[in-house]
Amino acid sequence: MGVDFTVFKGTSSGDIVEAKGHRDPGPTEVIVKISHCGVCGTDEHYRHADQGLGHEGVGTITEIGSMVTALSDFRVGDRVGMGWFHKTCGHCDACLSGFQNRCENKTEYGTADRDQGCFGTAVAWDISTLFKIPPEIESEFAGPLMCGGATVWSPLYDYGLKPGSRVGILGVGGLGHIAIQFASKMGMEVVVFSGTESKRQQAMDLGASEFVATSGRKDLSGVEKLNALLITTSAAPDMGLYLPVLASGAKMFPLTVSTEQLKLSPLDLILNTLTVIGSAVAPTASIRAMLRFVAKQEVRPIIEKFPMTQAGVIEAMTKLREGKMRYRGVLVA
Amino acid sequence: MGVDFTVFKGTSSGDIVEAKGHRDPGPTEVIVKISHCGVCGTDEHYRHADQGLGHEGVGTITEIGSMVTALSDFRVGDRVGMGWFHKTCGHCDACLSGFQNRCENKTEYGTADRDQGCFGTAVAWDISTLFKIPPEIESEFAGPLMCGGATVWSPLYDYGLKPGSRVGILGVGGLGHIAIQFASKMGMEVVVFSGTESKRQQAMDLGASEFVATSGRKDLSGVEKLNALLITTSAAPDMGLYLPVLASGAKMFPLTVSTEQLKLSPLDLILNTLTVIGSAVAPTASIRAMLRFVAKQEVRPIIEKFPMTQAGVIEAMTKLREGKMRYRGVLVA
Repeated sequence: MGVDFTVFKGTSSGDIVEAKGHRDPGPTEVIVKISHCGVCGTDEHYRHADQGLGHEGVGTITEIGSMVTALSDFRVGDRVGMGWFHKTCGHCDACLSGFQNRCENKTEYGTADRDQGCFGTAVAWDISTLFKIPPEIESEFAGPLMCGGATVWSPLYDYGLKPGSRVGILGVGGLGHIAIQFASKMGMEVVVFSGTESKRQQAMDLGASEFVATSGRKDLSGVEKLNALLITTSAAPDMGLYLPVLASGAKMFPLTVSTEQLKLSPLDLILNTLTVIGSAVAPTASIRAMLRFVAKQEVRPIIEKFPMTQAGVIEAMTKLREGKMRYRGVLVA
Repeated sequence: MGVDFTVFKGTSSGDIVEAKGHRDPGPTEVIVKISHCGVCGTDEHYRHADQGLGHEGVGTITEIGSMVTALSDFRVGDRVGMGWFHKTCGHCDACLSGFQNRCENKTEYGTADRDQGCFGTAVAWDISTLFKIPPEIESEFAGPLMCGGATVWSPLYDYGLKPGSRVGILGVGGLGHIAIQFASKMGMEVVVFSGTESKRQQAMDLGASEFVATSGRKDLSGVEKLNALLITTSAAPDMGLYLPVLASGAKMFPLTVSTEQLKLSPLDLILNTLTVIGSAVAPTASIRAMLRFVAKQEVRPIIEKFPMTQAGVIEAMTKLREGKMRYRGVLVA
């Protein structure tokens, strides 16, 4: 059977174009009819590539591959989210240690399956990176969790932070506004750092304990020491401002993909035995825990909706690029 | 009673001078008559300061403060090593969590007690940073363990590495030659990276499984992936050479104090979920474990001995500065 699909792709000129394709499900794949897809900063990286866009897709299974029933409990009719943008091998050290997100043999949909993306009508997706969405979570909110949510969940869940930890969150945007909710509802003390006062009320409403406007600040005196720092801003922060408020042993997570060098020296790290962790989208069991947590704790991304059309994709990506999204865009079929 | 002591200090000109002093033991301090002291690269940092030098001291307790008997089992006659160059408070979160090396209220001997140092005849030292030396370990070998040994022990012992882990060690010098022994005798696979072939035999004799001369290498193809990288070289390495041979989730430890920025971007870290850890001299329980391990496993620093005199200090520090020490200098009273 398989599926004929429409997808929105990047091009070398940066224009978004509509393309058609057909996929039959592989043995371990399912066909998902997409209902929603979040718009992520990473999509922008592929706007100039001949590449299907969208990796925060949510939809309904319409067909399953020959081995899916034997290998999993995914069935036709299930509402699912498409996790990371790669298949995992299941047999490398990373997969077998529970870190499927570090799979050493991962196949990027972005390279092998350039025709696919969740900005479109349907995809064939491997069950290794597929997640059932609990009934409590509406599909429009589930989309932004699959990449953005899972990106801020992992630092808080997988690296030894605990209720009572003091966590600094830099930036109130697509990532930061979800991180504030997660950390706060995990029982952590959340200190939000933002350039100006404009997002103070929003941050406090989301669960922040403290809010610090950093613009013009020469130091952060008065802020008690932090056990972790999640850096969600698109620009690299002035680390000299933050190092003095990090507790001994604190963990820093630069979450925004950037090729700029970290503004940290070995001395900076050794003096306070600080750790810098390159954390990606959470591993499988961790994403499942995130979805259970979101269902019970009523975490909700704040979203703006756009139609799943060429014009809708262009409008959403432009708004995100201009820094005007509040806070996560979702395309709706 | 107390002690009249001689100490060798740095000066603004960089000359090493001899000074005299007197110390009575504080309530939680003991007087230690120094028999040996290792010479560490960090001493060089204080050569231009009005500062007693030497922080790898070993000696015998000659007097104890008023509370020492009640608080500890240190007694007159015990052979002890002087741990980190600071007192720990015992009541901050770091101390109470077992990370005394991260003590938030630590008092540096280097700032409060500028007249003291283990390049000299005796010191008054707080029991919070004092370690009994097992009888199997000769004093001349115990000195270099207190800072150099504890610096390479902590990454291997305190951060989740295990027997079977593949550990890369960059540099065969004062730190590296001890790290090779520790990792090898812990059951890890040790891959040593050094500029030229000159130290190959030495590295293999110390326990390396593989040796790679990096000079002129454009890539490290053929090296299987590593779970950790201990960077013990004084100059920052070209990280681009090493990133491709790090396994997903690998931990990097830049152990040499430097103010140069890390040559790593968030992308480098996120792509393979790598972690950079600022690890200092090990915490208390970890140093005790190191001393037990050294006693049983017959790890021994390779040392060159110098007399504990002004000329001896100058000769040893000069040799270290010129990169000619093989591999750790020890001053002998």
